[in-house]
Amino acid sequence: MPGSTTTSAPTVDLPLADALRLVTDALGAAGYTSAEAAVIADHLMDCELRGLSYAGLARAVSVIERIRATPPPQPIRIDRETPVSAALDGGDQVGYLVATRAIDIALEKARTQGIAVVGARETWYTGMFSYYLERVIDAGFVGMIAGSGPALVAPHGGTESRFSTNPIAFGFPTADRPVIWDIGTSLITHAEVTLAARLDEPLPDGKAYDPEGRPTTDAAAALQGAFTVWGGHKGSGLALVVHLLGMLAGASATPVGASDCGFLAVVVDPSALGDADDYRARAAEFAESVRATRPVEGGGAVRVPFDRSAVQRTETLRRGTIEVTARVVDTLRQITLAI
Amino acid sequence: MPGSTTTSAPTVDLPLADALRLVTDALGAAGYTSAEAAVIADHLMDCELRGLSYAGLARAVSVIERIRATPPPQPIRIDRETPVSAALDGGDQVGYLVATRAIDIALEKARTQGIAVVGARETWYTGMFSYYLERVIDAGFVGMIAGSGPALVAPHGGTESRFSTNPIAFGFPTADRPVIWDIGTSLITHAEVTLAARLDEPLPDGKAYDPEGRPTTDAAAALQGAFTVWGGHKGSGLALVVHLLGMLAGASATPVGASDCGFLAVVVDPSALGDADDYRARAAEFAESVRATRPVEGGGAVRVPFDRSAVQRTETLRRGTIEVTARVVDTLRQITLAI
Repeated sequence: MPGSTTTSAPTVDLPLADALRLVTDALGAAGYTSAEAAVIADHLMDCELRGLSYAGLARAVSVIERIRATPPPQPIRIDRETPVSAALDGGDQVGYLVATRAIDIALEKARTQGIAVVGARETWYTGMFSYYLERVIDAGFVGMIAGSGPALVAPHGGTESRFSTNPIAFGFPTADRPVIWDIGTSLITHAEVTLAARLDEPLPDGKAYDPEGRPTTDAAAALQGAFTVWGGHKGSGLALVVHLLGMLAGASATPVGASDCGFLAVVVDPSALGDADDYRARAAEFAESVRATRPVEGGGAVRVPFDRSAVQRTETLRRGTIEVTARVVDTLRQITLAI
Repeated sequence: MPGSTTTSAPTVDLPLADALRLVTDALGAAGYTSAEAAVIADHLMDCELRGLSYAGLARAVSVIERIRATPPPQPIRIDRETPVSAALDGGDQVGYLVATRAIDIALEKARTQGIAVVGARETWYTGMFSYYLERVIDAGFVGMIAGSGPALVAPHGGTESRFSTNPIAFGFPTADRPVIWDIGTSLITHAEVTLAARLDEPLPDGKAYDPEGRPTTDAAAALQGAFTVWGGHKGSGLALVVHLLGMLAGASATPVGASDCGFLAVVVDPSALGDADDYRARAAEFAESVRATRPVEGGGAVRVPFDRSAVQRTETLRRGTIEVTARVVDTLRQITLAI
């Protein structure tokens, strides 16, 4: 649906293969190896397929700007390792690469041990946790991922930022569709606030504080102040939990900007606790019973987390094109041509 | 503060030692060994110390009623075990005993392996997850506990019960006070609804549906219908996650009444991922920075989960007495005398 995004910026419809080539070439031109570019591009394309354009090709531009503005990253290193655990120093590499490595290690350990915990620090832009959980689920495992980052969000009852938007996600294999719950713990996303700031549009009420601690609808002030946490007191506690899990991965409590984010994954093989096929069958049946819950008056069918995302991906794949801001396409082309 | 509870029932002030003896003797009279009675009584007394009287001595009456109404439980059995995992069949034993055993096993495994996952099924009345997490934290570990049970709560957008009140909790050791986040995923607790039903008082608006799916403030209708889930769509996803974690422990998706609840604990030694002392110091510092967040206008200090509970326990211990409904005291005395 060209022109249907929240911005009024001109867009172009790109065939999927062209979009993939465009982003892969630009990442290669920026210095990533073809293997690295393929890993990052696969993640960004999956965001586009699922309708999260702000985290798709546009993100490649941000990644390239970030690596050009900072000293070269170091190789990813394992700081500490046991048969069931590993702590990675991401070396300031982009999170798509660090988290992929972390999940590779977690899956390898869980396959032999039944459970694994892997943490990573010194990384940034990890993307959608659901992306990694699909890999965990494909391997037959249950997973939890939590991530910390720079201060953006005020605790409940406070007006200064302490937490990041601190995402947390759980994924479950079932005999049918996987169940993946993947949320941020702020009431508004960083992408929403930065977009509003760029378009000079107001935020909804109650979503942010300015640097002096006054409620604000000014996006630029919110970026200097704090976003409101999701879920009141309970949600604020969850945001704190996620931050402490990111710190368990070795990340700083107070990283500056897009750096030293924490990433913690726990992977469990259901067969450590029971029959895995039986679990998947029971989980599918239960998820189906949730979908079949009698809806509220006038409401649609009850939704199970990830269902809508999976449907949107299927629809985009069928359509065969994605809609990308023309400016993003131009910028990626220029990056590729500049080599 | 005698007479200050939400019920107008007469209460008595009991010295702590007398309360402990009363509940221990009643449990013994009901057939528990002295070791079992001590485990259960310690948990119930901790609820009283922390001001959760509905989960304290009154709960002993419910436990005794339950075991007298059902066939004798079986011994707790380990169904499946690896160096890092165990799945327990609780044998329909009360959860205070089953969860204590599960946590014992989890701590033992985490001490040697760095991480453990232990699940339990066929159990009921597990009490406060924070109680078990204090033990996990005392051992120096980070823990997560999730629990499923009988259908009481409707998914977001639905009007029929699918989830239980599905509690989830995380606990973190720090160099200072522990951080323990322990929540239920319904908008109202089972205890609140049963109390309102007993007193024939209305529930607040928006907390429940009747069996036909209409919003209701009638507590008896809510018990036959469904409670509202906490946190809208995001919270409903968390409730589903908790249910699927309980099922991973082997519990049925749809247990009937107080039976076959699921209990899943994951315990991680911070030293599997980094220096544990450093982690505890950084966690304490971060929690302190959260407490020191500039409050909203007219608001009090920002609270960190478990702080208030810990303060209340200290105050009760200093006071040396707890306030218990006279009827509960009488019932427990009669149980003890009836042997």
